[in-house]
Amino acid sequence: MSDEFSRIARIREQLERASPGAAAPAGASGVELGVGDDAAVLCPSARRLVVSVDACVEGVHFLRRFASLEVLGARAMMAAASDLAAMGAEPRWALCAIELPTSASDADLEAMMRGLDEAARRLGMAIVGGNLTEAPMIGLALTVIGELNEPALQRKGARIGEGIYVRGAPGSAGLGLQLLLVGGELAPDELPFARAWLEPVAEIEIGRALLGVASAAIDTSDGLVQDLEHILEASGVGAELEVAKIPRAEGFEGVCARRGLDATQLALTGGEDYRVLFVAPPGPSADALGTRVGTIVAGAEAALIGPRGERLILGPRGHQHFSSAGD
Amino acid sequence: MSDEFSRIARIREQLERASPGAAAPAGASGVELGVGDDAAVLCPSARRLVVSVDACVEGVHFLRRFASLEVLGARAMMAAASDLAAMGAEPRWALCAIELPTSASDADLEAMMRGLDEAARRLGMAIVGGNLTEAPMIGLALTVIGELNEPALQRKGARIGEGIYVRGAPGSAGLGLQLLLVGGELAPDELPFARAWLEPVAEIEIGRALLGVASAAIDTSDGLVQDLEHILEASGVGAELEVAKIPRAEGFEGVCARRGLDATQLALTGGEDYRVLFVAPPGPSADALGTRVGTIVAGAEAALIGPRGERLILGPRGHQHFSSAGD
Repeated sequence: MSDEFSRIARIREQLERASPGAAAPAGASGVELGVGDDAAVLCPSARRLVVSVDACVEGVHFLRRFASLEVLGARAMMAAASDLAAMGAEPRWALCAIELPTSASDADLEAMMRGLDEAARRLGMAIVGGNLTEAPMIGLALTVIGELNEPALQRKGARIGEGIYVRGAPGSAGLGLQLLLVGGELAPDELPFARAWLEPVAEIEIGRALLGVASAAIDTSDGLVQDLEHILEASGVGAELEVAKIPRAEGFEGVCARRGLDATQLALTGGEDYRVLFVAPPGPSADALGTRVGTIVAGAEAALIGPRGERLILGPRGHQHFSSAGD
Repeated sequence: MSDEFSRIARIREQLERASPGAAAPAGASGVELGVGDDAAVLCPSARRLVVSVDACVEGVHFLRRFASLEVLGARAMMAAASDLAAMGAEPRWALCAIELPTSASDADLEAMMRGLDEAARRLGMAIVGGNLTEAPMIGLALTVIGELNEPALQRKGARIGEGIYVRGAPGSAGLGLQLLLVGGELAPDELPFARAWLEPVAEIEIGRALLGVASAAIDTSDGLVQDLEHILEASGVGAELEVAKIPRAEGFEGVCARRGLDATQLALTGGEDYRVLFVAPPGPSADALGTRVGTIVAGAEAALIGPRGERLILGPRGHQHFSSAGD
């Protein structure tokens, strides 16, 4: 785009105003050289780096009418950092590759940068690099880098007899996405679900606390059952999930009923909660950090156990991005 | 996309076949945990990390008809790693955020991964993470992470009286891009220019050798004059560029004449050579690593000096992506 440099310069100024440390000599931020050169120079202080990239694309992962670009930018940063949370890492730095249509205004770019930057700072991260290009749609590819001295939490490691723990009320964000897709005015009891989708918070402190407690962990981006299956596959074990024990947010069943949605199905398969799902030996340490919803068993599958101990069959599995989730 | 997981699994298998070390415990690769979990776990071994993200988008930076996705993938990795070269860093790890239209086949994805992986291995990098999403077009956002013990080469640092050095023949890739845009059969003397655009090689060893020699450096992505201007701006100096000293590749002027292109303009503004442009005190060390084309002077601008010492005026400045580079 013809004004790429002036836009990058504006982002840079915006970031420097927001976090003056990012362009300063290495201090607490570990940034020796920030945005503005060919690359950033960082000074790590822990034994391990934990790195991940996460992308979201307009029309695939979100629609522009869902929220402001500030909210969508912050959400993308939280979603990316959630992968660091699930490993027990401390977020340090982020790089933002931004795609914008030529129709996007400078105000659009500034709003998105503001959201990215606010979320990054809330997570203790400095944005140290980026790229801006035109594209047919809005897209964000966010690379997040964390640090860790301890061995990382992994999907692998769940053992037979251990408990399966969730945080929050699975499916809340999935319900929110359904409401946002339908559009129109939301009822007061529906707003918390829209917010659950729009404003996730990466559970960094929880991930840190789970080091030494959990034997396996993942963040819930694909939905409870599918994310649990990632743990089972990596660990070579099976699971029994007690459906009645899965926490439901206040109003969840009422809103589902009013909107013609299957609450149980949504709790099991609704994605993008970005909470930590973990496996740990049962006990007060684990109980203090999550709600137990099942047990690791021999086998390779997640069996669903109903309120009377019966085995349930799950319908179409897991979360899919809405653009390809047709009938 | 409905088969996102199977595609990711295929990429993972492909990478593990290609570089078995990537999923193994930390060894020479510094990879404790590779592709397949929420994040990768790396063990840095140098004082500094050098990180950058670079994106290329179909229709903005390339057209699909230019080459196979294998060639385009390798090119994107080289372009991204070129930012590490310009800082003097040693490439270690890469993360690939890939966008593909739903029309792309599994073979397309495999070809792109093969190109990314081959280039990464040639550069001594392991691909440790990625993301795959659908989008209206092909897009790649590549994050590259290098290591460095010495202070990084920067755009800042050029001093009055020092020499300006180029590598290779500036504008070669720019001419190649013009040929690729026109399309059709290329003459034998045109093929090297198409290859200069399609198959850049990040100058890692040159960047390493310039540590302690160069006072400032950048990689030539935007064109000689514009990239030099980045150095001047960061360093607070001006430059005199002797146009007659800029190396021309064999056949460059002939092809330009036949195609109706201004060879001097192209040498000054053609982008995407991905060579290192550096400033250093004149002497054998610098002469061994580049061709001197000018001198740093007081001021803030790049003045062009003609063969008889006259000051030239440059037309429309610098390189722009072709999609917005209209008349």
